[in-house]
Amino acid sequence: MPAPIDPIRPTDAEARALARRLIDEARFAALAFLDPDTGAPAISRIAVQTDAGGQPITLISGLAAHFRALAADPRAALLLGEPGDKGDPLTHPRLSLTVTACFVEKGAEHDLLCARWLGVQPKAKLYIDLPDFRFVRLAMVAGLLNGGFGRAFRLSAADLSSVDPSAPA
Amino acid sequence: MPAPIDPIRPTDAEARALARRLIDEARFAALAFLDPDTGAPAISRIAVQTDAGGQPITLISGLAAHFRALAADPRAALLLGEPGDKGDPLTHPRLSLTVTACFVEKGAEHDLLCARWLGVQPKAKLYIDLPDFRFVRLAMVAGLLNGGFGRAFRLSAADLSSVDPSAPA
Repeated sequence: MPAPIDPIRPTDAEARALARRLIDEARFAALAFLDPDTGAPAISRIAVQTDAGGQPITLISGLAAHFRALAADPRAALLLGEPGDKGDPLTHPRLSLTVTACFVEKGAEHDLLCARWLGVQPKAKLYIDLPDFRFVRLAMVAGLLNGGFGRAFRLSAADLSSVDPSAPA
Repeated sequence: MPAPIDPIRPTDAEARALARRLIDEARFAALAFLDPDTGAPAISRIAVQTDAGGQPITLISGLAAHFRALAADPRAALLLGEPGDKGDPLTHPRLSLTVTACFVEKGAEHDLLCARWLGVQPKAKLYIDLPDFRFVRLAMVAGLLNGGFGRAFRLSAADLSSVDPSAPA
């Protein structure tokens, strides 16, 4: 197995479909953000779903380290796609997303997201109405899909969109 | 379930033992690092094991985005502990580690790590000897253990050590 010279392949429909599946099926993810005190990279597990437009959404407590961090600097990254228990975890597909965090104000949009969220994760009713919990949209800027050794693809925001540009309007 | 005022509990032997179990059992992890071109947070899945001293070790290709990034800035963070398929993923224990990346030169130490790594992950023999692959020690600086809602603990490097300070010398 010689090392490939350029591990990035041309993005195709199959890569776009796999990326969308990883986004749509994710119920949790790893979130990379900047520690507001040191500027160093930091990481948390977060719950994720999507909004009606297919963008990743998280629900976070005001007590979480990443709440204050994202409020200070919205630049973040998300890792989606969980390996199974067997074999080499690096052969399982995963998607690294560059995202910009946008806090959703309480009001009509928040209420719609609440209903959508609870439809998928009913147990969240235990904490979703606590006053410090907020939805944060993790707007996708770009992605790197890794489908296993030698199968990497760069994806644009358009590639990651849930809207198929080739579909009739 | 009222929101706790301070979600951090005093670190105890149980928290230290859970953190060590998550470190020792991890075979993969999410790695947060800084994009050397933009300074923004970035994230990758990596393979992990431990060295004889209990520090996390990864094996990375020179083609991986995080290889160049860690060479430029060794500050990174690691997320360990994978949820199962059922229930609320945020109730599963996970450990966020602040780490400093240190590349291991090829030579005696590299060879010892190779033998140890292959003992756990024999399939890595497919690529472990490729010239661009290197071991990187992710030396633990501090940790945040989250054992579920209201069960968070801050851990020092000493708390995270595999050496029990109360054991007879």
